[in-house]
Amino acid sequence: MRAAIVGASGYVGGELLRLLLHHPHVQVVAATSERFAGRYVHSVHPNLRGRTALQFSSIADLPETDVLFLCLPHGQAARRMDEFARLASIVVDCSADFRLRDPDWHARWYDAETRADEWRARFVYGLPELTRDALHGARYISGVGCNATAVNLALLPLARAGLIERVVADVKVGSSEAGARATDASHHPERAGAVRSFAPVGHRHQAEIVQALNIPAEALFFSATAVEMVRGVLATCHVFLNADLTDRDLWRLYRAAYANEPFIRLVKSRTGLYRYPEPKIVAGTNYCDIGWELDDHGRRLVVISAIDNLMKGAAGSAVQSLNVACGWDECAGLDFVGLHP
Amino acid sequence: MRAAIVGASGYVGGELLRLLLHHPHVQVVAATSERFAGRYVHSVHPNLRGRTALQFSSIADLPETDVLFLCLPHGQAARRMDEFARLASIVVDCSADFRLRDPDWHARWYDAETRADEWRARFVYGLPELTRDALHGARYISGVGCNATAVNLALLPLARAGLIERVVADVKVGSSEAGARATDASHHPERAGAVRSFAPVGHRHQAEIVQALNIPAEALFFSATAVEMVRGVLATCHVFLNADLTDRDLWRLYRAAYANEPFIRLVKSRTGLYRYPEPKIVAGTNYCDIGWELDDHGRRLVVISAIDNLMKGAAGSAVQSLNVACGWDECAGLDFVGLHP
Amino acid sequence: MRAAIVGASGYVGGELLRLLLHHPHVQVVAATSERFAGRYVHSVHPNLRGRTALQFSSIADLPETDVLFLCLPHGQAARRMDEFARLASIVVDCSADFRLRDPDWHARWYDAETRADEWRARFVYGLPELTRDALHGARYISGVGCNATAVNLALLPLARAGLIERVVADVKVGSSEAGARATDASHHPERAGAVRSFAPVGHRHQAEIVQALNIPAEALFFSATAVEMVRGVLATCHVFLNADLTDRDLWRLYRAAYANEPFIRLVKSRTGLYRYPEPKIVAGTNYCDIGWELDDHGRRLVVISAIDNLMKGAAGSAVQSLNVACGWDECAGLDFVGLHP
Amino acid sequence: MRAAIVGASGYVGGELLRLLLHHPHVQVVAATSERFAGRYVHSVHPNLRGRTALQFSSIADLPETDVLFLCLPHGQAARRMDEFARLASIVVDCSADFRLRDPDWHARWYDAETRADEWRARFVYGLPELTRDALHGARYISGVGCNATAVNLALLPLARAGLIERVVADVKVGSSEAGARATDASHHPERAGAVRSFAPVGHRHQAEIVQALNIPAEALFFSATAVEMVRGVLATCHVFLNADLTDRDLWRLYRAAYANEPFIRLVKSRTGLYRYPEPKIVAGTNYCDIGWELDDHGRRLVVISAIDNLMKGAAGSAVQSLNVACGWDECAGLDFVGLHP
Repeated sequence: MRAAIVGASGYVGGELLRLLLHHPHVQVVAATSERFAGRYVHSVHPNLRGRTALQFSSIADLPETDVLFLCLPHGQAARRMDEFARLASIVVDCSADFRLRDPDWHARWYDAETRADEWRARFVYGLPELTRDALHGARYISGVGCNATAVNLALLPLARAGLIERVVADVKVGSSEAGARATDASHHPERAGAVRSFAPVGHRHQAEIVQALNIPAEALFFSATAVEMVRGVLATCHVFLNADLTDRDLWRLYRAAYANEPFIRLVKSRTGLYRYPEPKIVAGTNYCDIGWELDDHGRRLVVISAIDNLMKGAAGSAVQSLNVACGWDECAGLDFVGLHP
Repeated sequence: MRAAIVGASGYVGGELLRLLLHHPHVQVVAATSERFAGRYVHSVHPNLRGRTALQFSSIADLPETDVLFLCLPHGQAARRMDEFARLASIVVDCSADFRLRDPDWHARWYDAETRADEWRARFVYGLPELTRDALHGARYISGVGCNATAVNLALLPLARAGLIERVVADVKVGSSEAGARATDASHHPERAGAVRSFAPVGHRHQAEIVQALNIPAEALFFSATAVEMVRGVLATCHVFLNADLTDRDLWRLYRAAYANEPFIRLVKSRTGLYRYPEPKIVAGTNYCDIGWELDDHGRRLVVISAIDNLMKGAAGSAVQSLNVACGWDECAGLDFVGLHP
Repeated sequence: MRAAIVGASGYVGGELLRLLLHHPHVQVVAATSERFAGRYVHSVHPNLRGRTALQFSSIADLPETDVLFLCLPHGQAARRMDEFARLASIVVDCSADFRLRDPDWHARWYDAETRADEWRARFVYGLPELTRDALHGARYISGVGCNATAVNLALLPLARAGLIERVVADVKVGSSEAGARATDASHHPERAGAVRSFAPVGHRHQAEIVQALNIPAEALFFSATAVEMVRGVLATCHVFLNADLTDRDLWRLYRAAYANEPFIRLVKSRTGLYRYPEPKIVAGTNYCDIGWELDDHGRRLVVISAIDNLMKGAAGSAVQSLNVACGWDECAGLDFVGLHP
Repeated sequence: MRAAIVGASGYVGGELLRLLLHHPHVQVVAATSERFAGRYVHSVHPNLRGRTALQFSSIADLPETDVLFLCLPHGQAARRMDEFARLASIVVDCSADFRLRDPDWHARWYDAETRADEWRARFVYGLPELTRDALHGARYISGVGCNATAVNLALLPLARAGLIERVVADVKVGSSEAGARATDASHHPERAGAVRSFAPVGHRHQAEIVQALNIPAEALFFSATAVEMVRGVLATCHVFLNADLTDRDLWRLYRAAYANEPFIRLVKSRTGLYRYPEPKIVAGTNYCDIGWELDDHGRRLVVISAIDNLMKGAAGSAVQSLNVACGWDECAGLDFVGLHP
């Protein structure tokens, strides 16, 4: 299958290149970047040196392909979707443009100009653990938000069982989440060593969580803190349950939900250094590691999940969704194990 | 005033040395370390090279002094308090031995063997913002827990006003919090880049928070995550209020509580890179920076505080408390500004 | 082919597990660790969770296998080589025991007790770029030193051409180089942020460099500095040449030497952020990236090389050498691309 | 004495503010920044919050003062020196404009347009260890280059004794060296974890070293590598001596040169974790720590020095020079001890 990546000089685009250049069923035929058109992709993504002689091209020169991955800034996919749909039979959009099903919600959390109602209705949210059935044969697949994904996968079994009364999701994120463009806030002397509360309230990924978990918006509280890390999200979800649960109940619930999921691992050990999920262990992989601990008083449950924001939180889920849509091995191209130490 | 530091090779002991060697009213006459006795203090604390010719000595050789700072592992201060009290007229204990007023609580959260009821009753908790009046003229001063202090100072104005219904305190901490002894968990290849949920539930500092804020134990939920940082605590306190408050109310409340506090700064800006408190900005200083943001739905308030765990969370508060106890300028020896970047 | 890893709880052993568990021609049947015997390998190497159900076993229980990888502390392979040779037809020793061909040199740089002259003579140094011919069909393969490898690959083309008059190799290394055992020096608060000159002179890898490059010992000067990094070596080799060379000469020389090497990339760009080799770009991969710059005065040439000390500097070269020895695809099991960012 | 800082929003300007706001003989009356004019200095330098109510102003509004510190980009001080000289009786320029005495050298290494020959002749190079006598009563003081200073102080005793045949200076530097402006290269995901050879040859600080050490340009080889650090320079100086020296000779030489220097410490221990100089130990201080080790073969000597590039490498030396020029205590305003850990 021939694939093109639009907006390939960014971090999600680069990650898609890394995955697809070694994918057994995909051949990358184009990678666009208006800024770097004409330059080798390895001049921007130095890890790809020696792996491909591909050069960045312009969107204007995109050939027809079987699948198009869109990694453009917010709003552009929605605005140019007609054009993109003519270029490929399958479109995977990694932006936030088509994540929210409800156009009114999209208008409220993003903007009204990119409602694109008719297109929105055709997109399937690309999180196989949530939407696998709908993804089979899907032609229009929406990417996922990284923070939202960490929280969603942490809480899905609880939400489906109707157990969540209220949840405070406190996520810790790396610097790659903000993208490849340098800003004053990303300047190394300022960002290094930071433990920076950049979104204590009001983060837009809340909408995606409420949609995925199907809980009342009033039940979710979300805060994000940037920490010294490049890749990764750790979500600490403080859940107030509406029923008394034991640790055994939780094992049963999570195992039932995730036993057959190839990219979800339950991590909850009594010994060792890595007793709970950690982002650095999943860096570069498509895993979402999940663990938990019950508080001894009240009905608080702490669910902890770790993902690589560029992988399970973006490019990895996109490729996994494509694998499902095409009926391929769901793990194709996603076999990297991760490093220790 | 002549001072001795017991257990001076650890990080809190080293910080006390740094502060007291330049304190206008204190002269350090002894610094003990059984492990390093006979060696120069700068061989362990290389920042002090050229500042002092002091050598570590043994507790057995402690002279009588005016004030004794104890920085021993848990339990030792309580067990040897009679001995130490004979050596100095003022004792400041930086361990957890005398932090909890209620002996039963101490027995429950720590152990029954170090109840030391009669000594416990004589100790004043060394957090001037909370106990300034009691500290005047105090002879026995207890140190504070670092995580507890970040949470306590963040919430004190709300707690005093009876506004806290429930709080989830999610703290991010640096590696110096675990002390100067190497462990498998502190081995650099394992600890570097970690975002590690090491105490999702059950952390002992909860007891200190409940005591300081005077809230029901059931209203407090506490989790701690280790991040890539050496010094520092960031506390993200998700507070569910029992009344509707505006941002203006909060400014009024916090200003009323803290306007005259020399080491508390309210940090809440609409622009700039440092809009909320950050640990790296207060590293080495005795500041506690505090900011907040109201959630637009529900009655959630996010209060953010940052301290240096070795300073305001330990040695800094100890020196500040001594300053109060002795009637000196409360800021004496604590004037370091902090660095940027 | 059935393989066992002896000393598999360390970092090189863990890396071998990562590589061999996905190697097309190898099946890992045992991984020993006296300390962790009976525990799952993923309890120590959390990245392997879900990839293997293997448990650590004791050396005493080692089955006969086709190939044995030894990752033991210095001296043990030499002392127990008879025993290990009975257990497998191929032995790859990752320690320093058999790296130096000359027993006297080994005695001088390491110790006389592990000369093991007869075994020493049978070992081939496992750096395919240097010893590929000898590795074909080899049964006893010695591992390589990480720092030595970074320098050797940087300088091999110059050395073979007899161009080196004198070289100052200044290497910057990550913390994993010191192994998996916690020490005072590896304690995170001490090691974090360090730029620490730990071996300004006298590093033992010098012997390996002199041997590989076949230059006079007096021509090599070597210093090592630990920097804030877990994996990686950057070697800055300041070469004083005995002939005038142009940049074009150097391209010709290095291309001639390395054009067919699957794991060597020449990195020397005029633009972009990654103009020269960088360790973080090769982390987890078997690449050695090499670049250079001629000084405008004198005959100094700066050659820069980057490797992952656990990969090209240890486990990666070991597996590559086994691939050569067995006549397999030299890249088998070594296909990870590396990450950006 | 009334002081103004021109270009105070940068890192050297911020450091001067930190130092001068607590200097016993200086009162800061203006701090200019065209970009941030009208905003509080603490909005850019958050460490100064609560320490000053100063706001940035424009150069156009500069009052007359006693001393003017210039922290402008290269070329501006030279171009506007007449104007600045009218505003203050003492001018300390922290840029590179007046560092090189020889106008031809300046023209060669920087540019001919900023020769400013007549002003150049009036400036004294602001490194008290080198130029203390000339600094007494000086009115025009040039700042120093950070990398140059680390190398100069490391080698000054050797150079004065005429012992240097050839030196390879390999410096490791932090990210603050590149200034406060965000660039693609300083974007955190790209810069974090870097060990990046950014100036293997051709660095302009070479000129400053050759001038200070008074050695032939051909004897100096200089390379710079960026490492994961914000503040700091470690210089590893590989010196080839023209005479046989013992360690005792070196102690004698360095002690003779530096025994009375308040900001130079000799760091060379046989035990402990900090046996040689380290940048993190001097962060925020005005110290230059210096150590060395003799190679056992040849006549190579490795001299290691560590400074904070913003302090001894810029603002600290500037303030120290002013102290000398004015006849004040040379350490005034420079008493910060540094932190451990």
